[in-house]
This record gives sequence, C-alpha cells and structure tokens, in this order.
Amino acid sequence: MSTLLLLRHGESEWNALNLFTGWVDVPLSEKGRAEAARGGELLAESGLLPDVVHTSLLRRAITTAHLALDAADRHWIPVRRSWRLNERHYGALQGKDKKQTLAEFGEEQFMTWRRSYDVPPPPIERGSEFSQDADPRYADLGEDAPLTECLADVVDRMLPYWHESVVPDLRAGKTVLLAAHGNSLRALVKHLDGISDADIAGLNIPTGIPLLYDLDEDLRPTTPGGRYLDPEAAATAAAAVANQGR
Amino acid sequence: MSTLLLLRHGESEWNALNLFTGWVDVPLSEKGRAEAARGGELLAESGLLPDVVHTSLLRRAITTAHLALDAADRHWIPVRRSWRLNERHYGALQGKDKKQTLAEFGEEQFMTWRRSYDVPPPPIERGSEFSQDADPRYADLGEDAPLTECLADVVDRMLPYWHESVVPDLRAGKTVLLAAHGNSLRALVKHLDGISDADIAGLNIPTGIPLLYDLDEDLRPTTPGGRYLDPEAAATAAAAVANQGR
Repeated sequence: MSTLLLLRHGESEWNALNLFTGWVDVPLSEKGRAEAARGGELLAESGLLPDVVHTSLLRRAITTAHLALDAADRHWIPVRRSWRLNERHYGALQGKDKKQTLAEFGEEQFMTWRRSYDVPPPPIERGSEFSQDADPRYADLGEDAPLTECLADVVDRMLPYWHESVVPDLRAGKTVLLAAHGNSLRALVKHLDGISDADIAGLNIPTGIPLLYDLDEDLRPTTPGGRYLDPEAAATAAAAVANQGR
Repeated sequence: MSTLLLLRHGESEWNALNLFTGWVDVPLSEKGRAEAARGGELLAESGLLPDVVHTSLLRRAITTAHLALDAADRHWIPVRRSWRLNERHYGALQGKDKKQTLAEFGEEQFMTWRRSYDVPPPPIERGSEFSQDADPRYADLGEDAPLTECLADVVDRMLPYWHESVVPDLRAGKTVLLAAHGNSLRALVKHLDGISDADIAGLNIPTGIPLLYDLDEDLRPTTPGGRYLDPEAAATAAAAVANQGR
C-alpha cells in the first residue's frame, strides 16, 4: 500500500484578481500563504508525514510546498521539481480577466476553454507579455514548449513524470506529497480514478487542503476519489472554484 | 572554470537571543528573512544565477535558500539537501546563552569551544531537551549521529558530501549555490583556500551575503578567499560576528 498526498497551491495574487494564470509565475497572496501553512498543519495533525515532495516549476506551488512542509516540520525532505507538473498553459488567455473573457466570448466559449477536455484556447503569441519564450527554466524544451494546452495535453505531458519519477517513490514505500495546480492535479486524479474525458469537467480540486490517496499494489485508489484531510472545508471550497468568473 | 556561491543563513531567532544553536532547528527571525531576500537580490544584480542549490537539513538554511532563490527568480532550480552541510553540533552548549556561558566558564574555555579546531564542547545528553535523538531526519545515522562536534569533525563529515555531490555539479559546469551555516561554510572555505588549523579560528563568515568562488580546473580558488557580492556589508558584518557573546 502506498500513500499519496495531493496539494493544490493556495490562492495566488492572480487568483485573487480573477485573471487566467497558466504558466505566468505569480506569487501566492497572503491568503494563499496561510492556506499553505494550514495544509501543512493538516498533514501534521493527521500524522501523514511526506518522505519526498514533488512540485511544478512555478513559485505558487514551490512556495506552497515550502510553507506546508515547514508547518509540518518536514521542510528537510528531498524535493523534486518538473515542468510536467505545471498548471495547464492557458495560451492567449494568460493574463486576461476571467469575467471580461466571459463577457467578451460568451458562456459557451468560456466554458469550452475552461472545462472541455480537448479544446485548447488560442496559442499565446511568441514574445508577448505573458509568454514564457525567454524563460530559462524551459530552455531545454525548445520548440516543444507548449503555447497553449487543453486538459488532454496536460494528461499527456504529466503522465510520463508520474510513471518515471513519482511511481518509483511510491513503490519504494515513501509517502509522497505532490504540490501542484488545479489542472495538473485534475489530470492525475483522472488517471488514478479512471474518470472519463466527459466527467472530468465536473471535478474541481480545492486549494490548500491535502487530498489523500491510499493506493493498492496496482496503484489503484482503495477509496475512489481519495479523502480530503478537511472534508468540510473541501466541499465549501470546491463549490467556490466552480463559480469562478461569475 | 566553475562558479560556487556560498550563502550563510540570515539571523535566526536564537542568533537574535544570543543562544548556542547547533542542530536545534530554529526559524529565521524577520531580520534573517530580509537578509536572505537581500542575498537573492545580490545574486540577481550580479547576474550570478545558480543552476542548483545544496542546503543543510536545518530550516534556517532551507528557508534562506528558498527566500534568496525566490528573490533571484531561481526558485525552480533543483535542490539537494544533506545533514553533512548542517551547522556544527554544539553538544551540551545547545540551547545555552552565550553571554552566560562566557561568564560561567571564562574567556579561555569559551573561546576554546567556539574557535579551537579540535576541542569539542561536552557531548549533549541523550534524550535531553535540545538533543536530536528522536528526530526522524537523522534516523538513518543511528549511532553515528554526533553528540558534539569540533570544527575538525565538521570538516570530516562535510568533505565527503563536497566531493560526492557538489563537485560533480561544478564539473558539469553548473553554477552552484550552497546555503548553509557559519561552521559548515568555514570548514569548506578552510578546504578550498588551504587555511591552516590555527588560522581558521580567525575567519568569520557574515550572514546573508553571497560569497563567490571562481574555481579553476583543479577546483582551486582563482582569488584566495573568494569575493563577497557586497564587500562593504561583509566587512561590517564579519566584525559583528567576531564580537558575539561580548
């Protein structure tokens, strides 16, 4: 049996401003920092102490991991990072106001971009303000760096990291913390729980509340959907996420 | 040519209280957090951008690395940690007031414990308040976990990590940041600059100011003693460190 803990980063400054973020590397808000620390307290209270942490390359996930682990007195565990755990690249929507985008393009287009499985937003223009062309952390990707992504794209680029880097830690009996993003975590949950392309649209993961998966020897969840360490807060928060942009 | 950056953690809460800390895992003070961020700004201003960071297992070094790299926009680089970069274990002095220790034991004994190369303080009592017996991060060390250390002991346990983990990064052409402690960094500087057992007593490393070593192909410093990225602040700070406990 393996123990996996998923943690979506706390509120970022752009979550607070209701902007599409994607790969833009914005910091946590004060509220987000408090959420991260609370996530770490939940880990400590439940006695679920990570042996290793995996994060994306974005500071809102990195700082969330740092603050949560510090609160849980596990700041000293090994850290692994990968762009494959990044948030979905939001293409040309990066930096745009969600409410304004909803008003401009209408409910159907807006929800297609936000929740369809395989329709990405228009690609971001190279060299534009919110593109990552010049970002050294993605230099190795070269032409393979995405300019936009749908959730299917996130699944495709996330799963190799899962299999090559996370699964070996789980097989070695380690308790694994994965600090990442709404869509990279949805992609993983889709895989773990075998959720269909259609049904994943309805799944929201709240920020800052660790989601526990006990996995059997085939790495299948013993409890489908896992278990939030604070189920009440998770239900409240998931409802709020679903209403973003309204 | 390889680039090595040494960064001593900013002021901790116990530095501020003038207590011997050693392996006790105290957090940075607010001043220490500001020092760490300033260290990162110095990295960014000088264009010396680390490709990888190595830290101890203590939160004052871990948080310093996090804050400095965040300020330098390098929070996403790979991280390695080892107990071998920890501060010197201060034995039975851990948790004791420096001024009181000076008064109780006298100048000679006090300075012997602080600055002699090969005389450790008395060992800490197992199971006592400031011992690390039950700390899971050192569980693998078993009976080998130190109960006290002199600087010679720190050199002995630090150098294997230097050779096995840091040198390969330098040889691979990476710019390496090492975020650690007064004595683990003194141990490394002693090795790099070939400082004698007697002369190392006079060397103080200030907090929060990156110390740059350009190393030749034999990993010898091209400039003995390296170069602080803020030389004026380093000189002022080094003088203050030398007067601790007075």
